[in-house]
Amino acid sequence: MNLKQFRTHYEPVIQQEMAELIRALAIPESLKESMHYSLQAGGKRIRPMLVLATMHEQGAAHPDALKVAAAIEMIHTYSLIHDDLPSMDNDDLRRGMPTNHKVFGEAVAILAGDALLTFSFGILARLEDVSAEDKVRLIDLLSTAAGAEGMVGGQVLDIEGEEKQLGLEQLEQVHLLKTGALLTYSIISGAILSGASSEQLVALSTFGRHLGLAFQIQDDILDVTGTSEELGKTAGKDETSDKSTYPGILTLPKAKEKLDYHAQQALNALAELPGEQQLLKELTELIVQRKS
Amino acid sequence: MNLKQFRTHYEPVIQQEMAELIRALAIPESLKESMHYSLQAGGKRIRPMLVLATMHEQGAAHPDALKVAAAIEMIHTYSLIHDDLPSMDNDDLRRGMPTNHKVFGEAVAILAGDALLTFSFGILARLEDVSAEDKVRLIDLLSTAAGAEGMVGGQVLDIEGEEKQLGLEQLEQVHLLKTGALLTYSIISGAILSGASSEQLVALSTFGRHLGLAFQIQDDILDVTGTSEELGKTAGKDETSDKSTYPGILTLPKAKEKLDYHAQQALNALAELPGEQQLLKELTELIVQRKS
Repeated sequence: MNLKQFRTHYEPVIQQEMAELIRALAIPESLKESMHYSLQAGGKRIRPMLVLATMHEQGAAHPDALKVAAAIEMIHTYSLIHDDLPSMDNDDLRRGMPTNHKVFGEAVAILAGDALLTFSFGILARLEDVSAEDKVRLIDLLSTAAGAEGMVGGQVLDIEGEEKQLGLEQLEQVHLLKTGALLTYSIISGAILSGASSEQLVALSTFGRHLGLAFQIQDDILDVTGTSEELGKTAGKDETSDKSTYPGILTLPKAKEKLDYHAQQALNALAELPGEQQLLKELTELIVQRKS
Repeated sequence: MNLKQFRTHYEPVIQQEMAELIRALAIPESLKESMHYSLQAGGKRIRPMLVLATMHEQGAAHPDALKVAAAIEMIHTYSLIHDDLPSMDNDDLRRGMPTNHKVFGEAVAILAGDALLTFSFGILARLEDVSAEDKVRLIDLLSTAAGAEGMVGGQVLDIEGEEKQLGLEQLEQVHLLKTGALLTYSIISGAILSGASSEQLVALSTFGRHLGLAFQIQDDILDVTGTSEELGKTAGKDETSDKSTYPGILTLPKAKEKLDYHAQQALNALAELPGEQQLLKELTELIVQRKS
């Protein structure tokens, strides 16, 4: 199965898994709608695909894999809902649709984010075919990747960085935390479910680190080169908001070189693993070549 | 040890435990300050006291008890930070001090809340002397108590209730979720650490349910009868905002009867447990008689 077939198969499956998890909750209707709205707003599902592709490449299947993938996508979705708020990025559009707070109001949007974040830990605690030890490990690592030492910390650095010109190293630190930590967690959680060795975990962490940086550099490049229509969000926003970006610090051609460097490093890390890792290689290509 | 001695001893200990947990994080300084600010803003520490008092009354001590107490207080604190935001209750004062977003700005306040919520699950996953099975149980129950089916769901109902006159049953449902779920969890988590039997857990759940309702009825009563100075927040706010309250629905004298009823039911549930349960009895009295 190539990546295209893999994604075509799993996209609706992931979508359905998340819908069923939310549907089963006995909660106020408006909250349910708000959570559901953002989960079903599309997107590339890169994190769930990383969970599932990592498992697939380790030759493993696991009855709880979809739940783990769904939990991570819920964390990602909560972060988007909160990032889009007026006091943060103040975005009206996300994936071409009105952002959560534009539809449900700020209060419910904040609470839908809180609920998705809280629920994701519950999903991991309730996995059926994972040992208690591995559940604890998955929860421990998710708390770090998604929290103050990971994604949330990266978002704070990102906001603070808006008021000053960051150096390349500082910018890299923002992205390693803001995007890289959860991307890497997606890979590592798939590897844990697969029973990967500690050497394999190290190689996959390196892969995740470079993949995350490549992802973010491409994000910055697309903001310069893409159109709002392609992106499903306002293009050129980084420049008008004076945000530190790879093209801004390095120039566009050098940013593209940097992107190629990290993509190559990601592929090199994969080469240390047994097997072809075809899906993960293709996912790396996808991230580098995406138009949105 | 009576409750006064117990609180005098444990208040600074809990405070210190939370400060140390936050200090150990490698995170942006502004985020750390913001998390620390709200954790150290005082308050009655009712939830940590419930964890510790429940354990004390079961005759149990546990090296991880303080961490569990701290994790729950972090959840409570995150909920206050988010509740105080302009798009929610829009409060400038909390416990007599400027609210988190007044000091750190809305964006950092939202993120500090997110970080505290996420960290609390990490604290539970990293307990040292609790079996993996019990950690999973603590995390599972916390996710339910704090999330869409508990506290967050209650907050949504509370916000939606502002636009209409609620009936008594609906108001009770709001409070069971918004306040009761986490109070009950505090008791249950202490009981789990104590190795309580399932009968004891049932009695303690009943205790928590009535304690939570008593707590909230007294909150509503104080909003009518207290001063802003006593409360450390704006008094009389419920009436000016047309909020559904127990005194509003029932009249003040009947609300006081209802308060006594739930306090008595709480004490009755305690009577089903072995031992004196002195601290939990006193905590019930404290909640009923508090002035803020």
